Amino acid sequence: MTPTFFNTNWDGTFKQRYLTADQHWQRPGGPILFYTGNEGDVTWFCNNTGFMWEVAEELGAMLVFAEHRYYGESLPFGPDSFSDSKRLNYLTSEQALADFAVLIQSLKKTLPGAERSPVIAVGGSYGGMLSAWFRMKYPNVVVGALAASAPIWQFPGMVPCGDFYKVVTQDFAKSGFNCDTNIRESWKAINNVSSTAPGLQWLSEEFSLCAPLKNKMEVAAFKGWLQETWVNLAMVDYPYPANFLQPLPRWPIQVVCKSLSFDSPVSDYQLLHGVSQAVKVYYNFTGGASCLNTSQTATGSLGVLGWFYQACTEMVMPMCSDGVQDMFEPEEWNFQAFSDECSSMFGVRPRADWAATLYGGKDIASHSNIIFSNGGLDPWSAGGVTQNLSDSLVSIMIPDGAHHLDLRYSNDLDPPSVRAARALEVQYFRQWIRQAEKTR
Amino acid sequence: MTPTFFNTNWDGTFKQRYLTADQHWQRPGGPILFYTGNEGDVTWFCNNTGFMWEVAEELGAMLVFAEHRYYGESLPFGPDSFSDSKRLNYLTSEQALADFAVLIQSLKKTLPGAERSPVIAVGGSYGGMLSAWFRMKYPNVVVGALAASAPIWQFPGMVPCGDFYKVVTQDFAKSGFNCDTNIRESWKAINNVSSTAPGLQWLSEEFSLCAPLKNKMEVAAFKGWLQETWVNLAMVDYPYPANFLQPLPRWPIQVVCKSLSFDSPVSDYQLLHGVSQAVKVYYNFTGGASCLNTSQTATGSLGVLGWFYQACTEMVMPMCSDGVQDMFEPEEWNFQAFSDECSSMFGVRPRADWAATLYGGKDIASHSNIIFSNGGLDPWSAGGVTQNLSDSLVSIMIPDGAHHLDLRYSNDLDPPSVRAARALEVQYFRQWIRQAEKTR
Repeated sequence: MTPTFFNTNWDGTFKQRYLTADQHWQRPGGPILFYTGNEGDVTWFCNNTGFMWEVAEELGAMLVFAEHRYYGESLPFGPDSFSDSKRLNYLTSEQALADFAVLIQSLKKTLPGAERSPVIAVGGSYGGMLSAWFRMKYPNVVVGALAASAPIWQFPGMVPCGDFYKVVTQDFAKSGFNCDTNIRESWKAINNVSSTAPGLQWLSEEFSLCAPLKNKMEVAAFKGWLQETWVNLAMVDYPYPANFLQPLPRWPIQVVCKSLSFDSPVSDYQLLHGVSQAVKVYYNFTGGASCLNTSQTATGSLGVLGWFYQACTEMVMPMCSDGVQDMFEPEEWNFQAFSDECSSMFGVRPRADWAATLYGGKDIASHSNIIFSNGGLDPWSAGGVTQNLSDSLVSIMIPDGAHHLDLRYSNDLDPPSVRAARALEVQYFRQWIRQAEKTR
Repeated sequence: MTPTFFNTNWDGTFKQRYLTADQHWQRPGGPILFYTGNEGDVTWFCNNTGFMWEVAEELGAMLVFAEHRYYGESLPFGPDSFSDSKRLNYLTSEQALADFAVLIQSLKKTLPGAERSPVIAVGGSYGGMLSAWFRMKYPNVVVGALAASAPIWQFPGMVPCGDFYKVVTQDFAKSGFNCDTNIRESWKAINNVSSTAPGLQWLSEEFSLCAPLKNKMEVAAFKGWLQETWVNLAMVDYPYPANFLQPLPRWPIQVVCKSLSFDSPVSDYQLLHGVSQAVKVYYNFTGGASCLNTSQTATGSLGVLGWFYQACTEMVMPMCSDGVQDMFEPEEWNFQAFSDECSSMFGVRPRADWAATLYGGKDIASHSNIIFSNGGLDPWSAGGVTQNLSDSLVSIMIPDGAHHLDLRYSNDLDPPSVRAARALEVQYFRQWIRQAEKTR
């Protein structure tokens, strides 16, 4: 028996950052839309969650954006928060939920007019998982939750580990002729070209790498960086120019695939030239980058280290590729290797089954008032709830939507599917609010 | 913002004790009745929960009795577990629930035939609160819960702090002529008699105290001991001879009141002689005690220190008396004084509102499949759920039952109300098991 060990440290407190907007709030009693902050700077999520701003007026709602402990400015131990696993011990999703609950209860006590306000949790991605879990664990605090692009089933034994990369691959397959095929071919080409010193140098120059590749290990890291780039493109394949992970044109994968839509076979060098042009769409669309830095793939607003610690403890999300149903190099899910990496990096080992025990896995039908919205283009939809589980655990699919498109500001180029999704989400909000008013 | 601080200590493990009985278990898939152990030695609760043993056969169920961390033999730091608040930090109800969840999941993995067994949580008193909370927080782990005499509302702002002692008083009022009145008079009599040295000596001898009373402080403690004695008698006012907190005759309060049923006014000495006779029914029914020890009021199987720490952190249960609607000396609920006591004793301060935030307080209607059974004689019924909250959050009242009488072995002297309660409880068990089988 090795149960979890929490530690209720009664003296330990920290400054948690949260943002509020009440210009449209109908007090007393008007609803509160509460953003359950995820792994990053809350101001960044606040600016990328236009949906809440747009519905605030019609719902007469106050907005609250709560920052997740250990991210942004909400660092329990300041700059030392990541210095050792003893300090990191306080970084868990349960903690974050408890923080949110305590924050809401204190707002209701101290904010005039908030006492009887129904609170609705809203979040996207990991923040969406938190929204769903928050409603499951604290139904007394929030009357419902919108969990946008929340892969609550991307855990061991719940969904096939290969589905995630399949979705990525499909996005590229349908965005340009041979696009996925050529990316699938590119890995071998990289291996070939990088096997000689001149080839290695050519590769570094072709991709304008800030740090030239020096050895096999760096080539492996380079391929990992490319793979993450394709994944990120799938996440942000939005129908209009946007700047979420990077500044990008509309339907960026279509633009990327323009450089990858030739008939194979071509030479390794031709192929990789196409790849480099494609990658530069993602990393240098604005033309401002003098060289490409393979150590970063997305905005610095995300807390990479904190998230990796969470992945090394609770958030164990198996992924794998076979190179056939997807366009990546075959790689099995190797829990042991992952666990060893976590052990050497943080001195902790992941608990593969804990999330399922704590949050119910597939057995969540007894809960209520949760919307699971997913985008068909979003690889995270592979681990999401894409079918209704009950009358009040509903799934909203946005076939031509990427990662939580529904949470973004509306745009003239929005597809009808996301407009419909947002309208339906607001309908459920109103229903939950009415329910809450009845039971008062 | 001062949210809770847990600490997920990945290296920390401890040996948790649990007892199992499978002679009636219909494997594979037969149900599991899981006792959510409370603040004491689990073997003692196991022996005082005959109900589970009696229904195991008709349900084809396996029995599991899990010990609560920091009680009995489940001491995370062995004998040092209570040595400092740093070690005590790991003692919380959430921890206990997590332990139970992890235990059940591991049993389902390792025990042949258990994988698909529906699990029902059963508990009494604090263990009953844990059963109810376990179903609320882990509906994926248990299909339902029987929360017997579980005062989940005995928290700040949920029920009047005076109700608890009112129930105690009513028990004595209806068990003998003038019984409550004479106890109400006794406090003044103790003050009078103890105000002189000879009186103090007489008092010590009259009550056969092992340690004679020496000063006002000890007299105050003596009165506290008497008060706790009356409370305990109300808890164990069973219709047959039993040995729960102490070995006692049937309907012990009626026996106690025989020595307290005279017409006042009588002299202080006569009155206190009656009180001493009454008290000795509780402490010396078997006649084995050479003197009375005011430092203990109940079985040593209960973990007093651990429970006091829990009361000083999460389990803040306000109580008060006015001496009019109850038979005790007037005493208001003084949170500050309580908090100061906790601070000096453990270096911690109670969080008055945390239990309400974490477990929902009165706002639990969204949950399901919980039976709240309460005894009309049981003072803890004052903080219990005594009315149905929904079709599947049901209350069962046992008017002539004391503290979780329904969980005890059946007895020829059982009143019809408790027989009916047990039958109804088993009906709900069957219903939950059928539900679980459907959703498989």
